[in-house]
Amino acid sequence: MNSKAEKTRTYIIEKSAVIFNKKGFAGTSLNDLIDATGLTKGAIYGNFANKDEVALAVYDYNVSRVMNALNAGIAAQETAVDKLLAITEFYRSNYKRTVIHGGCPILNTAIDADDCHPLLRQKAMNSIKNWRKAIELIIKKGIEKGEIKENANAADYAIVFISLIEGGLMMSNIADDRNLLFTCLMQIEKMIKKKLAV
Amino acid sequence: MNSKAEKTRTYIIEKSAVIFNKKGFAGTSLNDLIDATGLTKGAIYGNFANKDEVALAVYDYNVSRVMNALNAGIAAQETAVDKLLAITEFYRSNYKRTVIHGGCPILNTAIDADDCHPLLRQKAMNSIKNWRKAIELIIKKGIEKGEIKENANAADYAIVFISLIEGGLMMSNIADDRNLLFTCLMQIEKMIKKKLAV
Repeated sequence: MNSKAEKTRTYIIEKSAVIFNKKGFAGTSLNDLIDATGLTKGAIYGNFANKDEVALAVYDYNVSRVMNALNAGIAAQETAVDKLLAITEFYRSNYKRTVIHGGCPILNTAIDADDCHPLLRQKAMNSIKNWRKAIELIIKKGIEKGEIKENANAADYAIVFISLIEGGLMMSNIADDRNLLFTCLMQIEKMIKKKLAV
Repeated sequence: MNSKAEKTRTYIIEKSAVIFNKKGFAGTSLNDLIDATGLTKGAIYGNFANKDEVALAVYDYNVSRVMNALNAGIAAQETAVDKLLAITEFYRSNYKRTVIHGGCPILNTAIDADDCHPLLRQKAMNSIKNWRKAIELIIKKGIEKGEIKENANAADYAIVFISLIEGGLMMSNIADDRNLLFTCLMQIEKMIKKKLAV
């Protein structure tokens, strides 16, 4: 693919990222993509085979955007406990940005595409799997280095932390009140400090 | 409204309940409703003004179905602690049924309709508000009766419990593995027994 085509693809992905995240796959129409990009139908479908292909590329873009920022916050910390606290800090300080972008793309896609779009469903499934593994790894390394209690169940804490974040995001979103998510983040921090930290 | 029209309305609601819950508002078409009910377009729109009216009635039906069963489980228990444990028991023993019905209608609607359907959004918002209040009330009555620790923050526990249930449902659904939800339910039970119970 030449660099001009690559540029147009990237432009289309960036411009339709928020719409797909807000309206979902079924709710996003070709007209939405035309409105968002200012391009013609021909220009859009000259770069993507169909709406599915745009949706899949947009999903990857949206998840990378969140995960790269989250991972940068985690990587900046030294100890396992501080790395875990960087996760809650990320969701607290990025709350407004998350709302503007239409919420968590993993949560949205997991609910939106679960029953009607196998490829998007597969992508959401992999995102959750990778995220669980990443948190598990932080906890397991923390145990090895003596920073986290030896008997901590890394797999269970990963599930509980992600559920609290995603459930909290859903509740804050629907109530239009950041404090619901923040209550869940404080619960996670309590667990990190009282149950995990040595 | 005469009883025949009422019967037809109820029939349409019951037959399209699972489709709306699985496919979401934007993803459910008139053809889906025709397929599900075996009725003609004329028969459906003779009983409902439009798809919105079906969707709103279906939401109420789906949420009542879950909440009536949940509330029956809670009402059957005497103490506040047992009433709270009836909530996790409900989600554990009804997991298969929840999957067959397309997941939690509150979660689905909160994600699906948040950015594009104000009336459904309002309904999901009220469902969450009522559910929070119900859990808060159980905890507060438990404190009054000396069954739950005096310093327990009823509002915060309600938020954390619902987030764990909804986040856990999302994770189990996308991974097709009940154990993710069950891990969250065990976490709630640990909190009930160790943090709340006197």
